[in-house]
Amino acid sequence: MTHAEHLDELTLEEKASLTSGGSFWSTKAVERVGIPAVTLTDGPHGVRLQRQGGDHLGLADSVPATCFPPAVALGASWDADLARRVGVALGEEAKAEGVGVLLGPGINIKRSPLCGRNFEYFSEDPLVSGVMGSALVGGLQSQGVGSSLKHFAANNQETDRLRISADVDERPLREIYLRAFQRVVTEQQPWTVMCSYNKINGVYASENHWLLTTVLREEWGYEGLVVSDWGAVDNRVTGVAAGLDLEMPASGGRTDAELVAAVRAGDLDEQHVTTAARRALELVDKIVAGADASASYDVDEHHALAREAAGRSIVLLKNDGDLLPLDPGSDDTIAVIGEFARTPRYQGAGSSLINPTRLDDALSELTKIAGDRVRFAPGFTLDGSGDAASMRADAASTAASASVAVLFLGLPAHEESEGFDREHIDLPADQLELLAAVQAANENVVVVLSNGGIVRTSTWQHLAPSIVEGWLLGQAGGGATADVLFGVINPSGRLAETIPVRLEDSPAHLGFPGAFGHVRYGEDIFVGYRGYDARSTEVSFPFGHGLSYTSFAYDNLAVDVQDASLRIQVEVTNTGSRDGREIVQVYTGLPDSTVPRATRSLAAFTVVDVAAGSTATATIDVPRSELAYFHPVAGQWTVEGGEYRVEVGASSRDIRVSTHVSVAGDDLALTLDETSTIAEWLDDERGGPLLRSALLDGESGLSGMLADPEMLKMVGSMPLGRVAAFPGSPLDEAGLDELVQSAKR
Amino acid sequence: MTHAEHLDELTLEEKASLTSGGSFWSTKAVERVGIPAVTLTDGPHGVRLQRQGGDHLGLADSVPATCFPPAVALGASWDADLARRVGVALGEEAKAEGVGVLLGPGINIKRSPLCGRNFEYFSEDPLVSGVMGSALVGGLQSQGVGSSLKHFAANNQETDRLRISADVDERPLREIYLRAFQRVVTEQQPWTVMCSYNKINGVYASENHWLLTTVLREEWGYEGLVVSDWGAVDNRVTGVAAGLDLEMPASGGRTDAELVAAVRAGDLDEQHVTTAARRALELVDKIVAGADASASYDVDEHHALAREAAGRSIVLLKNDGDLLPLDPGSDDTIAVIGEFARTPRYQGAGSSLINPTRLDDALSELTKIAGDRVRFAPGFTLDGSGDAASMRADAASTAASASVAVLFLGLPAHEESEGFDREHIDLPADQLELLAAVQAANENVVVVLSNGGIVRTSTWQHLAPSIVEGWLLGQAGGGATADVLFGVINPSGRLAETIPVRLEDSPAHLGFPGAFGHVRYGEDIFVGYRGYDARSTEVSFPFGHGLSYTSFAYDNLAVDVQDASLRIQVEVTNTGSRDGREIVQVYTGLPDSTVPRATRSLAAFTVVDVAAGSTATATIDVPRSELAYFHPVAGQWTVEGGEYRVEVGASSRDIRVSTHVSVAGDDLALTLDETSTIAEWLDDERGGPLLRSALLDGESGLSGMLADPEMLKMVGSMPLGRVAAFPGSPLDEAGLDELVQSAKR
Repeated sequence: MTHAEHLDELTLEEKASLTSGGSFWSTKAVERVGIPAVTLTDGPHGVRLQRQGGDHLGLADSVPATCFPPAVALGASWDADLARRVGVALGEEAKAEGVGVLLGPGINIKRSPLCGRNFEYFSEDPLVSGVMGSALVGGLQSQGVGSSLKHFAANNQETDRLRISADVDERPLREIYLRAFQRVVTEQQPWTVMCSYNKINGVYASENHWLLTTVLREEWGYEGLVVSDWGAVDNRVTGVAAGLDLEMPASGGRTDAELVAAVRAGDLDEQHVTTAARRALELVDKIVAGADASASYDVDEHHALAREAAGRSIVLLKNDGDLLPLDPGSDDTIAVIGEFARTPRYQGAGSSLINPTRLDDALSELTKIAGDRVRFAPGFTLDGSGDAASMRADAASTAASASVAVLFLGLPAHEESEGFDREHIDLPADQLELLAAVQAANENVVVVLSNGGIVRTSTWQHLAPSIVEGWLLGQAGGGATADVLFGVINPSGRLAETIPVRLEDSPAHLGFPGAFGHVRYGEDIFVGYRGYDARSTEVSFPFGHGLSYTSFAYDNLAVDVQDASLRIQVEVTNTGSRDGREIVQVYTGLPDSTVPRATRSLAAFTVVDVAAGSTATATIDVPRSELAYFHPVAGQWTVEGGEYRVEVGASSRDIRVSTHVSVAGDDLALTLDETSTIAEWLDDERGGPLLRSALLDGESGLSGMLADPEMLKMVGSMPLGRVAAFPGSPLDEAGLDELVQSAKR
Repeated sequence: MTHAEHLDELTLEEKASLTSGGSFWSTKAVERVGIPAVTLTDGPHGVRLQRQGGDHLGLADSVPATCFPPAVALGASWDADLARRVGVALGEEAKAEGVGVLLGPGINIKRSPLCGRNFEYFSEDPLVSGVMGSALVGGLQSQGVGSSLKHFAANNQETDRLRISADVDERPLREIYLRAFQRVVTEQQPWTVMCSYNKINGVYASENHWLLTTVLREEWGYEGLVVSDWGAVDNRVTGVAAGLDLEMPASGGRTDAELVAAVRAGDLDEQHVTTAARRALELVDKIVAGADASASYDVDEHHALAREAAGRSIVLLKNDGDLLPLDPGSDDTIAVIGEFARTPRYQGAGSSLINPTRLDDALSELTKIAGDRVRFAPGFTLDGSGDAASMRADAASTAASASVAVLFLGLPAHEESEGFDREHIDLPADQLELLAAVQAANENVVVVLSNGGIVRTSTWQHLAPSIVEGWLLGQAGGGATADVLFGVINPSGRLAETIPVRLEDSPAHLGFPGAFGHVRYGEDIFVGYRGYDARSTEVSFPFGHGLSYTSFAYDNLAVDVQDASLRIQVEVTNTGSRDGREIVQVYTGLPDSTVPRATRSLAAFTVVDVAAGSTATATIDVPRSELAYFHPVAGQWTVEGGEYRVEVGASSRDIRVSTHVSVAGDDLALTLDETSTIAEWLDDERGGPLLRSALLDGESGLSGMLADPEMLKMVGSMPLGRVAAFPGSPLDEAGLDELVQSAKR
């Protein structure tokens, strides 16, 4: 008998008790009928099982676990299979620790580079976020461990995150902010979805019936459980009625009692509590079925996977003059500069902070390969202590005597974290001074960046012939960095977010982080590269960008328009001398669209491994649904007919081949009436002739105007009903009615 | 006995009949009690009294009237006294024609350069719009003729103007879009206010109780009549209840009957109809009192005023190498090129189209001064006919043989009009080819522009050492242009709107003109220069810019902080050799503001005439209210305390002198409660110590966190009530209540 089958035996009080936490990290048991408590624990890039006796905010020390690359890095791999394998490994670790649900992944959109929690999110693009998130969830849940897809929804900043209302129009909400959630929910049925702290258009996510029930369950068919973010419940009774199933953490029974009282008073239908309890029991059943007391995992294998994932996440931003890869066999000395080489910044602060099973640093890993050719100078301290001028001089002198200077720069941990947003995107001034000093001593500078949110490069990138974006790479990032620097791995990571020339260029700049409890997403659908493209804004490194130690040519693009998709084939040739991996990106656009659109939107991508000198054919399907936009009046996704541009390339601004294909549109069946304008009537196949003939019957000024293109342009925006109401109008109310009836289809 | 005193004698039907039009341009009489019909007629920059027997859209030929410079030009004068004098002249002409209300001025904000009706509006800035509009209304109404302040409100585009909803948050609505209306209403009590076609946040302006009653009457104290824009009524009953007094034009009695029926059915309080009728009668009384059957006006005097106003409206954008002014006494030949020199574009199309009493053209006026030194070539045709290459060659050859080429370029009439928006801001390609050909023949190029909306200059301004922005200058613009070119007038016009480098730089670019019946004003308060400044975007010519044939120095800025204002004094010295006029601009900012703010906002401006070599002291008061922002939670205007930056200069990006002054803030008396965050508690004078002592009593993890600045940054955004609800919290519900009570002031 499943636990869910006990539902009918439970009292109202017991059902209520099942739908809130028993402690910080567990649900409540109902011992009378043998229902156990289950454990939910922070993720997303490792298992953060808090040790017994932690603090009351749940932030204390946790048991060791593999710290995989956080989402900022993994997202840059654009490698769904890799994300799935990381998900499997996370599932193994969770199972070994008796954890039923791992709280992740976070798939919110990076609306602004300033969001303090961007390191926990994949991308500024909903397709990358959705594909990577879906793969990770699939891997995790294949191990009998649940995911918690978070933070649902529009939780794109930390500022005032527990109160702020994300004021978002429906189109950007649907097309940008909910889109990745829609993909993961429909593809994977995550065991839980975590509703966010914030309000959406004035209503708390935890109380938002439209979000939690209309969209999530009725439209997307979600069958799992909705859990609150920790402390996100403002009004439990309203929340349960809206579709919130489980409040976390414990409320000490207070809100359970509120639920019971609301039912008794007739303010809440008991069915809502029963439904939430049923979902809680179904979750218990899944967890019990997935649990394995004998489970364990191989720490070394997971560390190796963490290293592989980190290596695939690194993005080679720039490599002028091919300073990289370094030659492992040469005798040249290598100056390794920057404290981050010795003391890695490998994850972000907050609920995702993992206690790693081990920790590699780049300095040691580089030394393993290059031995005593490596000379180190810290250059700066992480806490700003010490004599900066003297450290800078030491670093410059170390660089001067080497053939190349590998300079590890990045964001100090205190500049980015869950809980607050950043105020700028600049590297610390002392690090830029160090860069200048090192570059003056040795022009062969390779900058390796460690950062959770992107940093501005435009002010200093001319000083560094090579730049390696190393994000926060998890516990094995040091080795992965060495792999990339020495060419053990040929880098294939791609930017999942734009690096702008200036923070002010960010599309969200004028509306971040809001004020007075509201943040207006005024840039509409033009988020990330969609915004930079819409304004033709120069960027430092575009979305999708990333270099390789080899080069690729694209040829013979073919697009086959099928009923349910566009099938795209393109030949990718490795024209260099090293085996390599290309991320083939497909963008679509509709230049003659009648509605506002991004110039190009990522519609699909794939990973292609190509040996040096070889050609591979990439076959990529773009589902027809990727061409759709959300029509807010019709309230549905719709494909507009027209000549779509299909572009294939190596970044959003490095399109290699493109073509046009004609796609038939959906029929929205909008009808003409008295609120339709003269122009809409005239543009319509049926309405145009009807209106013209109705007006030509009379000797009115209006018919003369319709014949004059200049005048028509001026009066075309008038609804026909308003024209009819004017004194002396050739159309009276009866004539108007007749016209509307005739135009009906 | 006034007509209004007949109110009690009227039947419901008569009252209803008084509140809609009797024809296209007049109200209805009630002959039984001797109430006459009155006439309202289009403006705003001239009297457009339609001839008898016009078309049913009211767009046909009208009686001759002086065509003064449209608002785009007059706004660039920054000269309130001039606007008042134009208003007086308009009043004289209206009175002479028996017109009771002139439908204007239009004071909508130029949100986007693409708005097709920007030529009818003053500025992108609410202070310039409000000051100029107020002066014009004051002058007009001083003649016993009413104004109709329009289009109320947020009617900032032509696209779908009869249906679209301007979706605007309250702060930009109050601070940008309603601000000029607030000024004119409170300063002038315009006899009528015209509600616009569009919806505001989903509700038609004509049915918007918040707009027409709460804000306009209850907050601003408006006592006049609200008239619908022609055809703006969607539901008359809803409209009257919301505060609409007069529907225009005639509805043929249909909507009067609807009103009566609604009252009889109990759906509408008769008091609403009575109130509207009372306002209609009060308007009749004002018009009757102001009417003068013997009134006439001096056509020549008004033409001269139109010329003076046009001269003051011209903006000298650029004058490298002092090509201008041309020397009236020299023997040099002058090539005058461009059809606009001979066939002026002097006003825009649509309801404001005036039938001028006469019409000057620049070619004739230049010839009056320079005689046969003037050589003309049309260069292009207005309708695109003719052999462009041959005309271009003629023009180049004319230029080659002259000492200077004065090239008249501009927007063809069909590119901008009421009724539709522009799609780009470029000059026609054939004109730019002409410019290149002329410049190749003679580098001494003066470009004179004719345009209602701004045009891009960045692509060609390097080809023209001098650029004169001539807008649409009204019927006497030809003479005024000659005056400026020959230095008869020393130009003093200033840009009342930014000329951006690219259309894409416009703050509204991503959200104009909207779709699906909605346009989101996503740029918030960052409209016009506020937006360019907030993004530090380079512009071609900044807001407030305009050159003179002399130069001015600013010295000895002094700011005296008074209770109700800042009194600013600054010395302006004419350091050149010609008498001149400077528009002294005062901008304020609050760099450390706790709320989003423009870098600088225009707070006051004044006109100073300074003789060559002389110094004048400008004294300018900035009312304290100009420092206020609208607090959307408190629902009131409030002045934030702090160190305000006061900048005085010749444009928004040519600040000459600046200082800081300390201003005490208003007390908003917001109180701390359980929804206030930990950070808000700790920042509060009373709350901080209370919270610390409440938590320090216990041995909790929370008190430890408060002591750790890093941790505090992370948890500071948690509302205290949520923290208290966490398991093991040191604050229970009782403790929280006690704390909230103690913190109350």
